[in-house]
Amino acid sequence: MTSNHINSKHLSEIPLPLLPPEKEVVDEMRQHDLLSRTDLARLTGFSRAKITPVVSKLVHTGILTEVGDGLSQGGRRPSMLSFNNGLGYVAGVDIGATSLDIALADFGGQIIERHSEVADVRDGPNLILSRVRKLVTDMLESHDLPHEQLYAIGLGVPGPVEFSTGLLIAPPIMPGWEAFPIQNYLREVFPIARVVVDNDVNVMALGELSKGIGKDVENFLFIKIGTGIGCGIVCNGQIYRGINGCAGDVGHICVDRNGPICHCGNTGCLEAMAAGPAIAARAMEVVRASGSEQLAKRLAARGGTLTAEDVGAAAAAGDRASLEIIQTSGQMIGDTLAGLVNFFNPALILIGGGVSNIGFQLLSSIRQAVLRRSTSLSTRNLRIDYSSLGAEAGVRGAIALALEHVFIVRT
Amino acid sequence: MTSNHINSKHLSEIPLPLLPPEKEVVDEMRQHDLLSRTDLARLTGFSRAKITPVVSKLVHTGILTEVGDGLSQGGRRPSMLSFNNGLGYVAGVDIGATSLDIALADFGGQIIERHSEVADVRDGPNLILSRVRKLVTDMLESHDLPHEQLYAIGLGVPGPVEFSTGLLIAPPIMPGWEAFPIQNYLREVFPIARVVVDNDVNVMALGELSKGIGKDVENFLFIKIGTGIGCGIVCNGQIYRGINGCAGDVGHICVDRNGPICHCGNTGCLEAMAAGPAIAARAMEVVRASGSEQLAKRLAARGGTLTAEDVGAAAAAGDRASLEIIQTSGQMIGDTLAGLVNFFNPALILIGGGVSNIGFQLLSSIRQAVLRRSTSLSTRNLRIDYSSLGAEAGVRGAIALALEHVFIVRT
Repeated sequence: MTSNHINSKHLSEIPLPLLPPEKEVVDEMRQHDLLSRTDLARLTGFSRAKITPVVSKLVHTGILTEVGDGLSQGGRRPSMLSFNNGLGYVAGVDIGATSLDIALADFGGQIIERHSEVADVRDGPNLILSRVRKLVTDMLESHDLPHEQLYAIGLGVPGPVEFSTGLLIAPPIMPGWEAFPIQNYLREVFPIARVVVDNDVNVMALGELSKGIGKDVENFLFIKIGTGIGCGIVCNGQIYRGINGCAGDVGHICVDRNGPICHCGNTGCLEAMAAGPAIAARAMEVVRASGSEQLAKRLAARGGTLTAEDVGAAAAAGDRASLEIIQTSGQMIGDTLAGLVNFFNPALILIGGGVSNIGFQLLSSIRQAVLRRSTSLSTRNLRIDYSSLGAEAGVRGAIALALEHVFIVRT
Repeated sequence: MTSNHINSKHLSEIPLPLLPPEKEVVDEMRQHDLLSRTDLARLTGFSRAKITPVVSKLVHTGILTEVGDGLSQGGRRPSMLSFNNGLGYVAGVDIGATSLDIALADFGGQIIERHSEVADVRDGPNLILSRVRKLVTDMLESHDLPHEQLYAIGLGVPGPVEFSTGLLIAPPIMPGWEAFPIQNYLREVFPIARVVVDNDVNVMALGELSKGIGKDVENFLFIKIGTGIGCGIVCNGQIYRGINGCAGDVGHICVDRNGPICHCGNTGCLEAMAAGPAIAARAMEVVRASGSEQLAKRLAARGGTLTAEDVGAAAAAGDRASLEIIQTSGQMIGDTLAGLVNFFNPALILIGGGVSNIGFQLLSSIRQAVLRRSTSLSTRNLRIDYSSLGAEAGVRGAIALALEHVFIVRT
């Protein structure tokens, strides 16, 4: 199969990095399908006179394309512009604790091929990343694309990342990954690709920002509930990472000073009290106290272990104890979010991650707790909902991460 | 006394608003005393070729001034530019619960005259703001400046402000101020001034950002401890206000679900547990339990009431019970900040406000709690300190707020 964009110029023929005002124009064009020069002036804040030569240059270099006339606003019909999605390709890689999700996309973020498989991140970086190299290579080859047209790879990983270096810092569930040179390892095979690594929940938030419900939302939070609990922060339309790149580490906010010891060493962290393992542990307690026949049956069928999913299934089947377990988790997450809503006053909170689907009671408990505990002004325009991209949030975000860095000078 | 800038052009002769790239150049020039065109290209990201005509235009209109040669970097010595601080004047107004602080400043933020007096915000907007009109008018007159040279007034007020409209929304300690049209009231006397209103702690944070310890810090928090507890958030070098303008309302984060009822209606809010009145109430309890001779003496001398300041004075005189009261407050504030540090990963937290000076034990308790409860990565580069501007933070910030809005189109 050949590329749709066989007649296009490629990015390698264009001098980088783009400087202002070219960069601002390109950024706007990437967000919109079609824009006139007047639209661009309005969106960038540059004058129409300043925009015209910038656009001419970008059309000449092949970054923008003239695509005919738009709707008249009374005068001459304006000539419309589009961003040249065929300038090159990027890969998005979502490494989960137990999964690998990879997509190849064009510069418009359109997915050309996608592949998901089961994988265990504990197998270490060599095994997982060599599989990434193989899968991306296969995708490029199946579309007759040389490695030199892969300009960037975005990766989401389930651990804390020092964003400036792309290195994992003391990741609790990723043995062997600490400080592994992911960027160099991938560039051995994709020599011109810029490799950008970020933690999974930032990447999911970016997915919602670029292609999901967060598209036009300036300030929102993405909460991932799984084995741990993390938060991606979008502030003024951009991922906010903080001074050490660890902003959003809400899983270790204290919920109960007298709570259980967390793997971080502190006591009563939200993650230790309300994430997947805590839900499973509470279910085990219920069974030991003979509090649920349904959970007891599931435990027997599972051969001695229960998961958060079991609790969700039992709740869906009407098990009262399971319902209460879910509500307890939701309330603790909601109480913590209530404080963050007072602090951050976001327009939107999205709930995602593997454990987020164990029942709508989780979302309604979170909503109730936030509404009860936040100030009324801070919840006046607040929407709390499930992630709109679901399992695709990660790979969509990884593509967006790659695209964000294509026009930045290569390191 | 006449103005230093008698020969300057005034802003009224210059067409506004400034559009990019003029605006970016002016913003950079306002931050720096002297810059060359090369400096400006580096700071704004525009090319040297693009900067040159922009600078020429700004020099021609009188916004920038050529001020001779800078240091050579090997070639010709570069001609240096400065921002014309004499283009006009602004006023900064810091309305506290019990004080009024006003300053007149030039466009460089240099204070020309400052005045502080005792005032009671409960006297209502007509009384307080007519006093503001009088004081600002007197300042302009004493420097032979016509009202038409006052281009902006920045105001900090001790209550929640809807920033887009400049209106107070349900302010708990400001009876009569709700939805009062502050902007129109001041513009009756200062017809061309843009009036910008924000809550006091945002304004203090802006003061630290423009003239204090936060000058080059991208992400920091300013915590004000007084009758209430509030937080100003600086994110990517700008005040962050959230979707409803109420971001930073940390006083109503829950500390203890079983705590006392707060004036907001919830229980156990940080403000109800740790601010000035809570410190005073705890001191009264100690006296009732015969736990401190020092506090009992002060209570008698005060005629039946104690304040947080009394507790501070007793602690400074070696009273153990008072020390413990301060430490308890510090720990609760620190525990709450620990969660916010995990979430926001700031580089700096500044502590200010009337109650912040009751003893260094407050700061050290806050520090200890944050270090104990935040993740180690999030505190790696964190500094926690007292406000560097102290009582001047508010008026400095109000001036900065006014200056930020001078070049924006008038409403």
